[in-house]
Amino acid sequence: MQFNTLKWELEDRILVLRLNRPENLNAFTVEMANELVEAFARASEDDTVGAVIVTGEGRAFCAGMELTTEGNAFGLDETQSPGLADMRGELGPLSRRDAVRDDGGRVTLAIFACKKPVIAAINGPAVGIGATMTLAMDVRMASEKARMGFVFGKLGIVPEACSSWFLPRLVGPQQALEWVLSAEIFDAEEGRCGGLFRSVHAPDSLLDEARALAGKFINNRSPVAVALARQMMWRNAAQPHPIEAHRIDSLAMFYTSMADGKEGVAAFLEKRDPVFTGKASQMPSFYPWQDDQ
Amino acid sequence: MQFNTLKWELEDRILVLRLNRPENLNAFTVEMANELVEAFARASEDDTVGAVIVTGEGRAFCAGMELTTEGNAFGLDETQSPGLADMRGELGPLSRRDAVRDDGGRVTLAIFACKKPVIAAINGPAVGIGATMTLAMDVRMASEKARMGFVFGKLGIVPEACSSWFLPRLVGPQQALEWVLSAEIFDAEEGRCGGLFRSVHAPDSLLDEARALAGKFINNRSPVAVALARQMMWRNAAQPHPIEAHRIDSLAMFYTSMADGKEGVAAFLEKRDPVFTGKASQMPSFYPWQDDQ
Amino acid sequence: MQFNTLKWELEDRILVLRLNRPENLNAFTVEMANELVEAFARASEDDTVGAVIVTGEGRAFCAGMELTTEGNAFGLDETQSPGLADMRGELGPLSRRDAVRDDGGRVTLAIFACKKPVIAAINGPAVGIGATMTLAMDVRMASEKARMGFVFGKLGIVPEACSSWFLPRLVGPQQALEWVLSAEIFDAEEGRCGGLFRSVHAPDSLLDEARALAGKFINNRSPVAVALARQMMWRNAAQPHPIEAHRIDSLAMFYTSMADGKEGVAAFLEKRDPVFTGKASQMPSFYPWQDDQ
Repeated sequence: MQFNTLKWELEDRILVLRLNRPENLNAFTVEMANELVEAFARASEDDTVGAVIVTGEGRAFCAGMELTTEGNAFGLDETQSPGLADMRGELGPLSRRDAVRDDGGRVTLAIFACKKPVIAAINGPAVGIGATMTLAMDVRMASEKARMGFVFGKLGIVPEACSSWFLPRLVGPQQALEWVLSAEIFDAEEGRCGGLFRSVHAPDSLLDEARALAGKFINNRSPVAVALARQMMWRNAAQPHPIEAHRIDSLAMFYTSMADGKEGVAAFLEKRDPVFTGKASQMPSFYPWQDDQ
Repeated sequence: MQFNTLKWELEDRILVLRLNRPENLNAFTVEMANELVEAFARASEDDTVGAVIVTGEGRAFCAGMELTTEGNAFGLDETQSPGLADMRGELGPLSRRDAVRDDGGRVTLAIFACKKPVIAAINGPAVGIGATMTLAMDVRMASEKARMGFVFGKLGIVPEACSSWFLPRLVGPQQALEWVLSAEIFDAEEGRCGGLFRSVHAPDSLLDEARALAGKFINNRSPVAVALARQMMWRNAAQPHPIEAHRIDSLAMFYTSMADGKEGVAAFLEKRDPVFTGKASQMPSFYPWQDDQ
Repeated sequence: MQFNTLKWELEDRILVLRLNRPENLNAFTVEMANELVEAFARASEDDTVGAVIVTGEGRAFCAGMELTTEGNAFGLDETQSPGLADMRGELGPLSRRDAVRDDGGRVTLAIFACKKPVIAAINGPAVGIGATMTLAMDVRMASEKARMGFVFGKLGIVPEACSSWFLPRLVGPQQALEWVLSAEIFDAEEGRCGGLFRSVHAPDSLLDEARALAGKFINNRSPVAVALARQMMWRNAAQPHPIEAHRIDSLAMFYTSMADGKEGVAAFLEKRDPVFTGKASQMPSFYPWQDDQ
């Protein structure tokens, strides 16, 4: 895979996606957004990829949206957009408003839809979209040098990338509101105490630790069961009643116990490693989220 | 009450339900699922029961689904089921798919619907359905000897029993995903730090501590108000807007303040214990969840 | 602003709303409910108000509902209400049941709808509605002398004020259920450890600390972006899918980046303070929650 703003490094079924504009502290551009969406879609369907780690090339994770003084600041094409007047009052189908779709949200929705576990290895500063893109990932591991900030408020804009859905779920409304309303930068330890970072590591060991955790998620695992479990944990919890989980659980348990589960139980009883044959690229037909992006 | 796989021990309005297959580490069977569903339905309607504690006989809490090499591993009756081909694509009414209903989910939905507080006293290993069944309980207290694991991934299957609805709500998505994707066993201290266990106790004192907490929940309490409060806390929080809570709050506060609330306030002002007459078996007619299983 | 049960103290765009019935430990009455609803509606629309701090006059925050032995205990007018018989089974539009609307819920829904950040400065005892009214606020800061209790269960009644929506979101279902079912009073440290209080302060410094935090939320901020961010964090997280956040994010980011965001980015690039002109009283027309109370 060749990208202009990313490196695609695949080894032992672990894909390291490296944000790769180090001369600009990996600042986010529309091109990077498009490439991240494509990369996650491919990682989701590529059976040689078991898990994804996202990190930054150089000393930063991602310094946020590339800011310029030309045109408007956020890459929005005012000439192609419906314009503020037409847009007002519009909360209809997204297809009608593609020109005003938030690029950060396109990225986090692609991460959300991914069938593979995703780990953020936050190696340095991560602000704005550099912070919010990590919220849709399953686990956030931070270097001692990580700094994070939901700094939108200082620029007169709002948190994006569906962060208002993800952040309060991850850390609770009180911590989410304080970080967003204060718009301040916080360090790795505050991020860990606030429940956002799973763990903090020496800079040299961050990527190795992330790889070790990714390995636990995928080695001797059924890719179909992993994909189902990842999606179920994110999506079912957001439903208004556990019966929705029960509908999907029942089908998923029924299906997997007839498929890779037979091998899994046999291997367990025979005290050997299982050999699973299911593929995430071929999810069972009841899989409810195939077309959800 | 007589069960083959459970002990029903009622004393001082506290029901201890003891998983009772100690020779098999209380491994879960279809019979145990059916008996648990029946036991929780009865506990919910039996006014001599104020609260429920679930624990395990012997050294284990529950070692998970009884695994066998005969047929499929999970008690699914392939001959009675619609079969994978017919089932595919089905996410319709559960009644149409009774043969593929997850047994663990039938149990946690029965716990969810229960009008009495439920405490898990996790005395030892609790894996698979032994772990997920505790998630629908209100409080989890652990022995120092407790071990827990959402081990489904190691068998090529998925977490069930509506755990994808409960677990992220209890401990947040990040911890939930790590426990589920890694499928590793963790000890009592990790469970407490992760937010899953309310407290950790010496093995000898676990049940006494659970009884003491259950007593706080039911002594000098209106069973109607307890049932309403338990259900409101679980269900209202899952609604997409607080107005749904307001609808139910308003009716529940109106009703209870006309009923047991009059006695409660009088007793408070007269500095005496209240004598409540309401019964959980006779919930007010506005109670919205009477038929929800 | 003149109120009978509140003090309205506005300085440096920070409104301190002081519950002002110190002779009764600021006990809650129907008049106080009406005045709080009016005060939050005005604070929401008044552009001279940037943020709100709620605290109590004297030694208490709020001792809960004023209890009397006359009529029913909770200010419900039985003669104007439809009566229990008619009310039963009713879970329809609130307009049909105004006489049974919970007063606490009217207050928390007014706080929820407010476009300004709201901080609770809990200076002393806060029980019953004195506890639940703080749950709709963005941040809870506590004096070392704070005591809190969801004591409804001791009176035979239920938690109200939409607390069953807010409390489990703030502290998780396990802690929420224990506090509600036990109905016990807890101190500032337990509240902090349980995730409810953001921080604990010496009594003398509580209000200064609250003002300092409020200042971080509003100084050099766009009131439009602040209002959007506050509402997005509370509301979007409660939706069943992140796409709902994406719809609103996209419009909010598009709008703000054309409006105050242009000034915000220019000021950032020019290393000067921004001068924002947006007003919370004139939200963009796509703002989805204008009429939601």
